[in-house]
Amino acid sequence: MKLDALAAALYDQILQIPLIDPHTHIDPHRPAARSLDEILGYHYYTELAHSAGMDKSLLDPSISVRERVRNILGFMDRYNNTVQYHWFLEIAHEFLDFEGERITAADTDWLCDQAEKLMSAPDWESDVLHASNLQQVFLTNEFDDPLTGFDTNRYVPCLRTDDLVFKLDQTTVQNRLAKATQIEVGDAASLRRAVAALFEHFVSKGAKACAISLPPDFAPQPVSDIDLSRSLREPATLDAARTRANGVFWMLAEHCRHFHLPFDLMIGVNRRVYRDGVYQGQDLFDGRVSLIQYSELFNAFPSVLFPISVLASSLNQELVAYSWIFPNVLTSGHWWYANLPAFIEQDLRSRLEGVPRTKQIGYYSDMYKLEFALPKYNMYRRVLARVLASQFVATGRLTEEEAVGVARDLLYENVKAIFKV
Amino acid sequence: MKLDALAAALYDQILQIPLIDPHTHIDPHRPAARSLDEILGYHYYTELAHSAGMDKSLLDPSISVRERVRNILGFMDRYNNTVQYHWFLEIAHEFLDFEGERITAADTDWLCDQAEKLMSAPDWESDVLHASNLQQVFLTNEFDDPLTGFDTNRYVPCLRTDDLVFKLDQTTVQNRLAKATQIEVGDAASLRRAVAALFEHFVSKGAKACAISLPPDFAPQPVSDIDLSRSLREPATLDAARTRANGVFWMLAEHCRHFHLPFDLMIGVNRRVYRDGVYQGQDLFDGRVSLIQYSELFNAFPSVLFPISVLASSLNQELVAYSWIFPNVLTSGHWWYANLPAFIEQDLRSRLEGVPRTKQIGYYSDMYKLEFALPKYNMYRRVLARVLASQFVATGRLTEEEAVGVARDLLYENVKAIFKV
Amino acid sequence: MKLDALAAALYDQILQIPLIDPHTHIDPHRPAARSLDEILGYHYYTELAHSAGMDKSLLDPSISVRERVRNILGFMDRYNNTVQYHWFLEIAHEFLDFEGERITAADTDWLCDQAEKLMSAPDWESDVLHASNLQQVFLTNEFDDPLTGFDTNRYVPCLRTDDLVFKLDQTTVQNRLAKATQIEVGDAASLRRAVAALFEHFVSKGAKACAISLPPDFAPQPVSDIDLSRSLREPATLDAARTRANGVFWMLAEHCRHFHLPFDLMIGVNRRVYRDGVYQGQDLFDGRVSLIQYSELFNAFPSVLFPISVLASSLNQELVAYSWIFPNVLTSGHWWYANLPAFIEQDLRSRLEGVPRTKQIGYYSDMYKLEFALPKYNMYRRVLARVLASQFVATGRLTEEEAVGVARDLLYENVKAIFKV
Repeated sequence: MKLDALAAALYDQILQIPLIDPHTHIDPHRPAARSLDEILGYHYYTELAHSAGMDKSLLDPSISVRERVRNILGFMDRYNNTVQYHWFLEIAHEFLDFEGERITAADTDWLCDQAEKLMSAPDWESDVLHASNLQQVFLTNEFDDPLTGFDTNRYVPCLRTDDLVFKLDQTTVQNRLAKATQIEVGDAASLRRAVAALFEHFVSKGAKACAISLPPDFAPQPVSDIDLSRSLREPATLDAARTRANGVFWMLAEHCRHFHLPFDLMIGVNRRVYRDGVYQGQDLFDGRVSLIQYSELFNAFPSVLFPISVLASSLNQELVAYSWIFPNVLTSGHWWYANLPAFIEQDLRSRLEGVPRTKQIGYYSDMYKLEFALPKYNMYRRVLARVLASQFVATGRLTEEEAVGVARDLLYENVKAIFKV
Repeated sequence: MKLDALAAALYDQILQIPLIDPHTHIDPHRPAARSLDEILGYHYYTELAHSAGMDKSLLDPSISVRERVRNILGFMDRYNNTVQYHWFLEIAHEFLDFEGERITAADTDWLCDQAEKLMSAPDWESDVLHASNLQQVFLTNEFDDPLTGFDTNRYVPCLRTDDLVFKLDQTTVQNRLAKATQIEVGDAASLRRAVAALFEHFVSKGAKACAISLPPDFAPQPVSDIDLSRSLREPATLDAARTRANGVFWMLAEHCRHFHLPFDLMIGVNRRVYRDGVYQGQDLFDGRVSLIQYSELFNAFPSVLFPISVLASSLNQELVAYSWIFPNVLTSGHWWYANLPAFIEQDLRSRLEGVPRTKQIGYYSDMYKLEFALPKYNMYRRVLARVLASQFVATGRLTEEEAVGVARDLLYENVKAIFKV
Repeated sequence: MKLDALAAALYDQILQIPLIDPHTHIDPHRPAARSLDEILGYHYYTELAHSAGMDKSLLDPSISVRERVRNILGFMDRYNNTVQYHWFLEIAHEFLDFEGERITAADTDWLCDQAEKLMSAPDWESDVLHASNLQQVFLTNEFDDPLTGFDTNRYVPCLRTDDLVFKLDQTTVQNRLAKATQIEVGDAASLRRAVAALFEHFVSKGAKACAISLPPDFAPQPVSDIDLSRSLREPATLDAARTRANGVFWMLAEHCRHFHLPFDLMIGVNRRVYRDGVYQGQDLFDGRVSLIQYSELFNAFPSVLFPISVLASSLNQELVAYSWIFPNVLTSGHWWYANLPAFIEQDLRSRLEGVPRTKQIGYYSDMYKLEFALPKYNMYRRVLARVLASQFVATGRLTEEEAVGVARDLLYENVKAIFKV
């Protein structure tokens, strides 16, 4: 069979594999979009429009929802080459019955009207889940999230811990922690009790992972209780901040071990680099990072699984090597600035060539609204089908059926096994 | 259409797009070559021949021009796999009516004779420009260039500032600056007047950009006038050198803002690494560099456009991300050691997938003689056609016509818009 | 011709090129395997099985050889996507007459029986060499290896120097050195005599290279004899260790110059990162490394050839650039974690586009048993054929015959010329 036909045949079969999306920012109380504004409010569109020349004032809350949409669409001809534009086009085709070839500002009213009409249907959420072949969706929950009022089997809670590790010097975070746990944290011992309470709460509500995003220069080390306690009393200095971050992070890993939760590490983001950027469009990265920074952690917690996401594609080769050597290190998805087909293709190929198939979490959507799973997973599935076709099936290393089996591991079986869902 | 045919069809259409070459080292008083020696004197040939075993003495000025050519050609069979060899072969075919399949030392006399005959024709320069579809050619002018005696519309002046930033401790540079501006620089204030005079001179002559190449460890920061003045008085220490470089660089950015000039940053070169290398064949790089080093600059000058060239291909993903987020950061060409198809293909693909099409300067030739625009641009255009064909048209993301439109943005429209030519 | 057919045709011709394998860990007294355990004892299989979930206890020496094999095979379905699995499958097909499509634990007894039967044949070693088209095999010899009892023309000695540079503070290493050279090393002068004695011994036995693997943070600098002597007396401090490593390394380079031996540098390995890993499955790397760390060395020893292996694929672009500029820097193979087709393809393509063809050592097997040359070289040859077909022949830059000539340089002629075998 010719390569294109082979890739197309694989793609069709891969589409049949059900999905468990192991990392999203879905609000389980409002999982699906209710308007086009909620689709185009995704930071990818606001930041690309702004980067391409749109003044931030055109996104001001004082502007009507429809005009905001029109503004963003008005700049789309400047970035209609990007994959993000094609996600949107695919959403319009799949979910809004749009039949045009391209979208411009002239489509604003028709698309907005259509979105309002369709998205208000009572079955919209389940229709989107069904059309997207989504069985379960992992959430990103702040540590003080009550985790009530939604189906925690469908929307799986995950304990996000950035604030605990990096912002515990802030009074608001301390107050949130006290309120959530009924424990006033003043030293390492009380912090440990508070963290245990959080884990108990989350696990009791069906949480399946602890997660955190980390700056490029983070290199976790254990901290003595005495030093950690001191760092909790001295919030101001850089040194105390580093000790506190190390100490809290290490304590989280200990609780992951105790509660048998995988610890998702998303490595490499610098926050607020572009200070005047749009909301959520300010963070960037620094490629000068190494997994050697985490070697003590991986050694110290052999029973904790660490699914690793890397922001710098240049770190992917280290990730392949560390996952090939360390039993508790796993590859996880294609994150943010590495989530372009150019990087996915190279990163995915090397993972498939060097990492045990059972240790790869193929993809997650990182979405804020359910409608994005379909186009983002499709982008990934197209690359996956092509890599499997060209590098594995055409070369005789896998049969078509075996290749689909590998895809099923990456998209479904491994998520089930690793997170025990 | 099959992929090869599709790429060929796109290539043919892309060839029709006129070119504005936004970065070269052309001498406007001698823009075209006058002999084969001026072609093979390009450092790519001398350094490859030397690296492949040719003693530097074979390039000595005491050796006749024709023997120098014969020496370089004599080593070509050791590097006839490289793209640089193929640029030369293409020049021989296109401009010298050479009809052989391969070039060896045996072709020396024929090629030299032919070059002397053809290149002495009065219309040679315009013939080369016409055959290369070149409308305008940007220059690299030292700050004390009088910018007279040539058509500044065809050969667009650009203010190159390496000497000001990194060599202002040298008496010769100070003297050149004093002579060019009639201002004796002794402190920050007088330096500011001198820099303003340079910008006024350049802008009055039609300059369209300020440009600089930067070492990998450069991380510009603003400097107070007091510190800058002190650094100008104490040229000797490393600390003073760093302060001076930061202060002058920041001052240049301020003048780019005031004079509405883009500031081309060519990031990552280490000078004179191979100290015994041939002329211009001594510089290398260090991949350990990040655009985070420039984040303060990008934040501080939102109205200044920064076309960024990176020497390390590993920095390309950061460049994609920074250009996708910062409105004033643009991708620019494929520089020097990253100017091989292997790197261009991956770098170009990711830019096309992630950066607004209006923010990408596709290519520049970096040439010293006009004859090199054609083969270098052809190399780029072949990669561009193939990436557009395989990743965009074959996948249905762009029509053929739209793909040519994207190519036109990268090769022509964006240069016009960004540099206002 | 179509691309697939063209690549296949090139592959067939490339297979005819004889091989000189310029880096292995073959024991010349037991070059071929004698059982399946010696095949699957290769760290690639033990570490992948362990990484995929196999407890290290299943490899314990107390366990019978056949059960160890069964254990490793039992986990193979978790990593049958990897290239390492396919090397094993190819060995089973080529050398054990295995006819199945896939290997599982159920094949253990048949494979073990077959291996014992075939590998005990008196001609096994020469059969494997012949089937693999191997003319000569370079070794990795400890400095105190007597180099006796084997054919040093077939198995070419190489002086491996890691222990001298990094472990000279250990009494066992000092004793081994004293025993090997009859020189008690107490200062720089006596060390120099001892090193000279080692080189004389090795060269007299036909050694063709000096070799070393280096950690990512190594940056060699010359050391005065006074400082080196002091560092030999003070083994304990980090500072002394660094001085000693620099001093010994520089002294080795001086002896390479004197004895006209190339100095193989294998740059970038961190040892014992995963401390509980299986034997030889504990080392990893750090991508934050630059060849600028070696620029003083390359400048100081223009007559010493440095074939460079890089562990981090992200360092490959620097390697291309340094090899294109420095006459004494050569590209060498695709090492360890960079030895996956995904990395080989990109790294190889850029070397072919930018580095003189005479300066590239295409591949080495790094094998411990002869049976691995065939599948590892085949993996490389497939990538080589495809890159030559798609980037060089299909584009008209090389004819088929010329492409095979380039392959012959990479696989054979350059090894002969560089190491003078």
